[in-house]
Amino acid sequence: MEPSGIVTLLTDFGLKDEYVGVMKGVMLGINPCVRIVDISHAVTSFDVVHAAFVIDSAFQFFPQGTIHVAVVDPGVGGARKIVCLRKAGHQFVVPDNGLISMVLQRDGQAQINLVTNPDYFLKTVSNTFHGRDILAPAAAHLSLGLSPDRLGPRLNLMDLKMLDLQGPAIGSAGELIGKIIAIDHFGNLITNIDFSAIEKLTLGNPGMLVSMRLGACKIEGISKSYDSVGPGCPVALFGSRGFLEISVNQSNASLHFNVRIGDPINVTLGLISVALAENNDHNLRKKARRL
Amino acid sequence: MEPSGIVTLLTDFGLKDEYVGVMKGVMLGINPCVRIVDISHAVTSFDVVHAAFVIDSAFQFFPQGTIHVAVVDPGVGGARKIVCLRKAGHQFVVPDNGLISMVLQRDGQAQINLVTNPDYFLKTVSNTFHGRDILAPAAAHLSLGLSPDRLGPRLNLMDLKMLDLQGPAIGSAGELIGKIIAIDHFGNLITNIDFSAIEKLTLGNPGMLVSMRLGACKIEGISKSYDSVGPGCPVALFGSRGFLEISVNQSNASLHFNVRIGDPINVTLGLISVALAENNDHNLRKKARRL
Amino acid sequence: MEPSGIVTLLTDFGLKDEYVGVMKGVMLGINPCVRIVDISHAVTSFDVVHAAFVIDSAFQFFPQGTIHVAVVDPGVGGARKIVCLRKAGHQFVVPDNGLISMVLQRDGQAQINLVTNPDYFLKTVSNTFHGRDILAPAAAHLSLGLSPDRLGPRLNLMDLKMLDLQGPAIGSAGELIGKIIAIDHFGNLITNIDFSAIEKLTLGNPGMLVSMRLGACKIEGISKSYDSVGPGCPVALFGSRGFLEISVNQSNASLHFNVRIGDPINVTLGLISVALAENNDHNLRKKARRL
Repeated sequence: MEPSGIVTLLTDFGLKDEYVGVMKGVMLGINPCVRIVDISHAVTSFDVVHAAFVIDSAFQFFPQGTIHVAVVDPGVGGARKIVCLRKAGHQFVVPDNGLISMVLQRDGQAQINLVTNPDYFLKTVSNTFHGRDILAPAAAHLSLGLSPDRLGPRLNLMDLKMLDLQGPAIGSAGELIGKIIAIDHFGNLITNIDFSAIEKLTLGNPGMLVSMRLGACKIEGISKSYDSVGPGCPVALFGSRGFLEISVNQSNASLHFNVRIGDPINVTLGLISVALAENNDHNLRKKARRL
Repeated sequence: MEPSGIVTLLTDFGLKDEYVGVMKGVMLGINPCVRIVDISHAVTSFDVVHAAFVIDSAFQFFPQGTIHVAVVDPGVGGARKIVCLRKAGHQFVVPDNGLISMVLQRDGQAQINLVTNPDYFLKTVSNTFHGRDILAPAAAHLSLGLSPDRLGPRLNLMDLKMLDLQGPAIGSAGELIGKIIAIDHFGNLITNIDFSAIEKLTLGNPGMLVSMRLGACKIEGISKSYDSVGPGCPVALFGSRGFLEISVNQSNASLHFNVRIGDPINVTLGLISVALAENNDHNLRKKARRL
Repeated sequence: MEPSGIVTLLTDFGLKDEYVGVMKGVMLGINPCVRIVDISHAVTSFDVVHAAFVIDSAFQFFPQGTIHVAVVDPGVGGARKIVCLRKAGHQFVVPDNGLISMVLQRDGQAQINLVTNPDYFLKTVSNTFHGRDILAPAAAHLSLGLSPDRLGPRLNLMDLKMLDLQGPAIGSAGELIGKIIAIDHFGNLITNIDFSAIEKLTLGNPGMLVSMRLGACKIEGISKSYDSVGPGCPVALFGSRGFLEISVNQSNASLHFNVRIGDPINVTLGLISVALAENNDHNLRKKARRL
């Protein structure tokens, strides 16, 4: 793989401390020409599930040969491994805690190496900041063209820790039962319902009306853009990551609906019947079978 | 125009999500040598007026040939246009929603092009993230030297959406009636009163005393620097953007005065008379005529 | 000194305004190839003591020849000087307010120059934003290889303002009396107790048990890593900066212990006796002598 010379960073370090800056300093000391791009440093502390979603949403917009370093690492200094994944023309250097689960679900071959060779670490390795001492220097060496086989032995895919990432379920009335998996800066609600799930529901007929239910509220139809409705009105659409999103035009859907990550959202063919709308979520989930 | 190779970014995207990072990834995929500088991603969501102020304050400190991408875009995916402005040796790629109104008020020729040519967009254009799909790739191509005429046809200045940006008014007693247009991270209050407005008030005599009134409080004289007064004391001065600012030395003027953006500030020649100080703002504004 | 071409930035400017971005624009206008790395812009406004800690923690992870610009500058526009320090293979451009006190405590020769030569400033220098008008352009010139002697005359070390940075004291029972000097994004409590202080306490015998007391709570032993204890349990360890830290595994120690910067932490040989634990901090401090 020809390196692009770019390394991206995704962490839960925040921007208050010098932690992110020193990782960059370490990388520039190894590869003075490396281009470092921040994906986010505001992942909720230790939230590996959200980090897995963010890195999967982001990586494909970078040039082939980019190295993605993600450090959301509650197990730092403990028994968890550090791994290098090569997949889809990109490389990922991460703790083995499920952070690359969504990337691994994508089609294509994967090569996984343990990161164990101290030749590519800082000379002194702390037990609290492997981002600085191991992941950053290893990534900087990769950005110079180092083969991942130099970092450590190959690992089988099945030896990696995988998150239990669930797509939407199908309820007893045939409806999709999804959930909110992320809420962005604008308060948009990103669900785990992608285009293919809606296609199955509508039997491939894009003209069929679907209705979304979120708590006691319902939204009819999937719109083209935020301003398909008036300012302050709710709208469902496919967001820029390819998932069904619930938004409020020029406002904050998270505050509007008073919902949180993990809350259910149902998608039904046609208009939502009163009877269905009165079913409570608990019953719906009990009856659900996996998609 | 010789490109500087620099692209700046100003958005209301926040730094929590991967949105800013993927815009950078898209640009680096087109121009691997582009230098990307963040102006701010913390513009209040959809606050085009503030973004217009920030970009106008910032752009002139970058080298000639820099491209400024600003994405505060409540109308994304709707009917609003995307435009490229060439002015004062810089280029701006923005939604046509008034974001470049302050830049356009500056002296000098302007060339405006619509951004409509999909050859310079990502292959797939979403309806929710034109920053990533249109503005970032178009800017990256400009940073390689692309002529804006390749992006789309010319547009007349009068076809652009302009904000109603008001300078200070003159009250019936001859005083300046301005307002707070921004509050910075330190709590400094930036007004819409610039040096020339004060010059008119003092008839070009810099030795003349002026007094500022902010709600029930008054400040006498325009000082040289924050520490012209003791810590914790209010001070008026010309800030780094060239506007009159009200600060509290080593403290937060916004909290000290309990004021908000849009609140009025009056500037009077000499000391503030008791009678004037007792006038309420409503009356002052009724009597005001535009400067 | 061969410049690395890297300039780091540490400020209390926040990321809301365009202040940091325009400093970068100014530097790129002077040295188009400069690599700029943010250390942090979230230092508490005017908190020079914390900035001194952060810059000392960060600089050594950058390549030799790096220039570090720190602007936490409550005295901007007043009588305070601006200085350039060359030390340990790095250069620092800072207001003379104690910001580099911790760096200066390190071993090695120091060369200090005043920054007074307007040839290396912006043409117009404001009284409110020397970061943009003086420090950024001076640093950009240094990154091109300019000798600091061109910036202004030499200054003696003893003419610099130094902070009163105290290490831990020794109490009447022989215990270490330190304090919390920083709380990071994760809520980890960083103390002013370094490895050598613990070594003195244990007489160089690393097997000896020590106990930490923080308010009414105690922690026994210094652990290897966060996950030496179960999730939600307190743990003491040496953090990545080399200081004793109190953490709570996968949680926030600052909230757990309800403590603040400046709060005392005591380290005792062996288990904490009931009698000692009942002593109040005031008495302990009265009896304390400096280490």
